[in-house]
Amino acid sequence: MSQTDPVELTAELVRCASVTPEEGGALQLLQARLTAAGFECRWADRGNVRNLFARWGDKGHPRSFGFNGHTDVVPIGDEAAWTHPPFGAEIVDGVLYGRGATDMKSGVAAFVAAAIDLVQTAPPDGAIVITITGDEEGDAVDGTCALLDHMHAEAEQMSVCLVGEPTCPTTMGEMIKIGRRGSMTAWFEVTGVQGHSAYPHRARNPLPALARLMDRLASHEVDRGTEHFDASTLAIVTMDTGNPATNVIPARCSGTVNIRFNDAHSGASLSDWLTDEAAQVAEAFGVTIDTRIKISGESFLTPPGALSQLVATAVEAETGVVPELSTSGGTSDARFVKNHCPVVEFGLVGQSMHKVDEHVAVDHIVQLKAIYARILRDYFAA
Amino acid sequence: MSQTDPVELTAELVRCASVTPEEGGALQLLQARLTAAGFECRWADRGNVRNLFARWGDKGHPRSFGFNGHTDVVPIGDEAAWTHPPFGAEIVDGVLYGRGATDMKSGVAAFVAAAIDLVQTAPPDGAIVITITGDEEGDAVDGTCALLDHMHAEAEQMSVCLVGEPTCPTTMGEMIKIGRRGSMTAWFEVTGVQGHSAYPHRARNPLPALARLMDRLASHEVDRGTEHFDASTLAIVTMDTGNPATNVIPARCSGTVNIRFNDAHSGASLSDWLTDEAAQVAEAFGVTIDTRIKISGESFLTPPGALSQLVATAVEAETGVVPELSTSGGTSDARFVKNHCPVVEFGLVGQSMHKVDEHVAVDHIVQLKAIYARILRDYFAA
Repeated sequence: MSQTDPVELTAELVRCASVTPEEGGALQLLQARLTAAGFECRWADRGNVRNLFARWGDKGHPRSFGFNGHTDVVPIGDEAAWTHPPFGAEIVDGVLYGRGATDMKSGVAAFVAAAIDLVQTAPPDGAIVITITGDEEGDAVDGTCALLDHMHAEAEQMSVCLVGEPTCPTTMGEMIKIGRRGSMTAWFEVTGVQGHSAYPHRARNPLPALARLMDRLASHEVDRGTEHFDASTLAIVTMDTGNPATNVIPARCSGTVNIRFNDAHSGASLSDWLTDEAAQVAEAFGVTIDTRIKISGESFLTPPGALSQLVATAVEAETGVVPELSTSGGTSDARFVKNHCPVVEFGLVGQSMHKVDEHVAVDHIVQLKAIYARILRDYFAA
Repeated sequence: MSQTDPVELTAELVRCASVTPEEGGALQLLQARLTAAGFECRWADRGNVRNLFARWGDKGHPRSFGFNGHTDVVPIGDEAAWTHPPFGAEIVDGVLYGRGATDMKSGVAAFVAAAIDLVQTAPPDGAIVITITGDEEGDAVDGTCALLDHMHAEAEQMSVCLVGEPTCPTTMGEMIKIGRRGSMTAWFEVTGVQGHSAYPHRARNPLPALARLMDRLASHEVDRGTEHFDASTLAIVTMDTGNPATNVIPARCSGTVNIRFNDAHSGASLSDWLTDEAAQVAEAFGVTIDTRIKISGESFLTPPGALSQLVATAVEAETGVVPELSTSGGTSDARFVKNHCPVVEFGLVGQSMHKVDEHVAVDHIVQLKAIYARILRDYFAA
């Protein structure tokens, strides 16, 4: 039986215009391929999002290897700025161009191709579970979460899971993600009493309180990092008032901070800190500070062990590069998968993701499939 | 010869719709009255602003008493909110309603009426100089400044000057202004390097620098007041960024402060302080801070003495109230006049100025004319 070409499959997926939440034919294409290869496929749609669940082998097998990914892509932006058609999948000088070429239709194509080839050429003693969502780039509430809810309801399981997101900063093979920092945003609205700039004692200016609060938060060393994590970070992302009159003290202003936090904290512990700081400043300045907090994800870690070693060994064997086990970067759907089973992430070099003329080296797609294939062989051989 | 009715003159002036920079017939009306009473009138127009200069008596007489005022008014705002027509000058229950009723067509009417009556009934040994501008409420660059430039060019002089702006907070006669704090505004634009909230070390966030700068400025005690002045004040009036994305560190943000300062400072000394603070913060945070400063007026003081005593004596004689000599409040054209001669300000209760249904008690107009008349008599009798 001929091998599945991951480059061709990537190209077919790129030609599906699957900007979140459009399915664009991408998941249907994968469903057809996986079904033909003997996978049991089911839809786990929720809201306006389509999600594909696929399993080869017995449900609940104690050796169930999971892959997770997404076929939705971010918008193309200004199409005129693209040198290659964003949904054309043109290959020029060994480079495939198009939205999702890196993030992450090539990753999906690579693990689907590796899984199909394995079950067709050397059926393992175990199961392969593939979960692919149509909403990772959007709100992500009806995507991998819906797939995991579906699996829970159907008593489906993964023993371990590999998320195929781009993870390498500049060189193929250099980084495996074994965890991610948590992410949260806090919005502060400070309310005082409007007045004339010439008589500040008759007003209650909310702006000095906002400046003090933002300075205190930004100056605070959240931590210095933990065993597997970089230091947590806090970034002020905006402060706004919108007062055009220099002789008026405004009644209201607002500020927003975004925190990326490691396993020394939780969303709850940081929320307590933020609200306490706001309360102290509010009291000191005699203003009201309303605080709204959204926790996008808690930090998580799959400690270095069997799973990361399995992936690292395959990466080194195929690329000659010893990958770093990292917890850097933003959020991914691994933050949901970690509640189900041990999860790590490995994929391509992510440099062109979300950019104009997003692209991937054809060789890297082939190499990525080889890595995923080796991971599967090693996993089931153990 | 009959006395000039200041209430009737106020009403006539209110009926002139002289919203800055419209002359509206107000200055022409005054020119006609003053000319008829023997004043030499000249126009000192500049830009789109009309300004009236009038003198009775000899040019450069060592006893030249000056009055300064304006006939332009602020816009009426929402006309539907007015109970009385804004340019109707309706008198109901002893109260005259209309835009400019308080600020300051009644003041102008009172001093013009007092001056006309004096020169017609008891011509003094001296001169009376009246300068009335059509732009005090606007930019004020082509108003009293143009009049003073005209006077300089024509070798016209005032020995002392009384500005007829409303000065009393709540009770007629309670406050004479003998100086004003200076006013200045500083705009800070902080520029860093844009980046992703998850990687603040790769960006250079301008917002913590702005928060620190604003906190430092707002926390600084500029001074504790001087012999004749309240403490200087600094008010942050706005901080803005306009970044809607919580995962983006913006490249740029801005903040504005307004300072009202006493005679312990100058616009230049405070500018030095502001730019030094900005430079320190810029260096500490590795950002660029562009600072733009506008000095609207320096502080000034006519120390308590003959002029303030002259006015205070007349006020007490006519109202029974001992006026406070104050330097409180915002700016007025006295900040320009002080470069020419000693200047104080005295006028009505200002509570309704700039508001809907601006109004003045008819009795107060009569009382104000009596005060101005007594000031003139006492000045020339001395």
